[in-house]
Amino acid sequence: MKALQEKILREGRLIGTEIVKVDSFLNHRIDTRFADEMGEEIARLFAAERPNKILTVEASGIAIACSAARAFGYLPVVFAKKSRPSTMVDGSYAAEARSFTKGTVSVLVVAKDFLSPSDRVLIVDDFLATGEAGLAMCSLAEQAGATVCGFCAAISKNYQGGAARIAQKGIRVESLADIARIENGQIIFTE
Amino acid sequence: MKALQEKILREGRLIGTEIVKVDSFLNHRIDTRFADEMGEEIARLFAAERPNKILTVEASGIAIACSAARAFGYLPVVFAKKSRPSTMVDGSYAAEARSFTKGTVSVLVVAKDFLSPSDRVLIVDDFLATGEAGLAMCSLAEQAGATVCGFCAAISKNYQGGAARIAQKGIRVESLADIARIENGQIIFTE
Repeated sequence: MKALQEKILREGRLIGTEIVKVDSFLNHRIDTRFADEMGEEIARLFAAERPNKILTVEASGIAIACSAARAFGYLPVVFAKKSRPSTMVDGSYAAEARSFTKGTVSVLVVAKDFLSPSDRVLIVDDFLATGEAGLAMCSLAEQAGATVCGFCAAISKNYQGGAARIAQKGIRVESLADIARIENGQIIFTE
Repeated sequence: MKALQEKILREGRLIGTEIVKVDSFLNHRIDTRFADEMGEEIARLFAAERPNKILTVEASGIAIACSAARAFGYLPVVFAKKSRPSTMVDGSYAAEARSFTKGTVSVLVVAKDFLSPSDRVLIVDDFLATGEAGLAMCSLAEQAGATVCGFCAAISKNYQGGAARIAQKGIRVESLADIARIENGQIIFTE
């Protein structure tokens, strides 16, 4: 998605040599009009997969997941939580995800009520790098017996292996902008 | 908002005598069509205040804040974080919020870049009870010199004092459904 590449180049900031910070429009401040444009692109890419539910993880995935859900004609969104709330009393699916930048392991949790074997789940997230969170979400859907009909990240760094790990499960993986490498402080996209 | 009252009665579940769980459409699974309807109602209620930014807090506030932002003609949304990310390197505003249900204190953080003295901020959240998170968000906006032109919760329990605490600061406070009391397992709304 050319507009996303341009926005990353214009507004993104490099932290060190690996982290691209896009909190001016995606992770902290949300450009809601642009989120809807990304949602429309996601719906276009995955229209043929006919998802009936969008799965994401709190917090930065929620806005773009809701935009995609709207573009599909208002699908429900389920967001996995990073800890089990005290009110989640009726059973849940859980899967671990390591964070390489933070050096922590978090457990993603979804209440059993909100994923079922009849679901065709499209997983949407803001970032895809090593694929830890993505694989954890795949696991949550699989535990429920749901079909994962696709995975879409706004921004990916496929060279970090996450896209391949998810694709290995037979899941179609797309991103709206794939960073091929960061070179001398420049972001180079996959064309 | 009658439709929200009806939805709470139909889908909400009481946990103990005080907690109304609405995770089937607001806190975990998001009914995206209904979120947009709530967003339109928020925009109607606060049109005269002419906000130029919506402030909320991760994670459950994000969907409804984005829906409200869209209904206002695509305002930007800023969501406060519940911990300071390692990538937030350029200064931030912070304010403490106690959680009475969890017995914890979290620190809400917003990067200084995303709130400014020229902002007219509408604060939107999913719940308003004791007002701890709401007051923390007011503090973040005040630290930036921004004007808080209103506060809107989807669901409030004004009897727990939060609405009065925020209104005391001269801020207009509304909610789309106010729970007056919970009596013998029944939710009674303020009319």
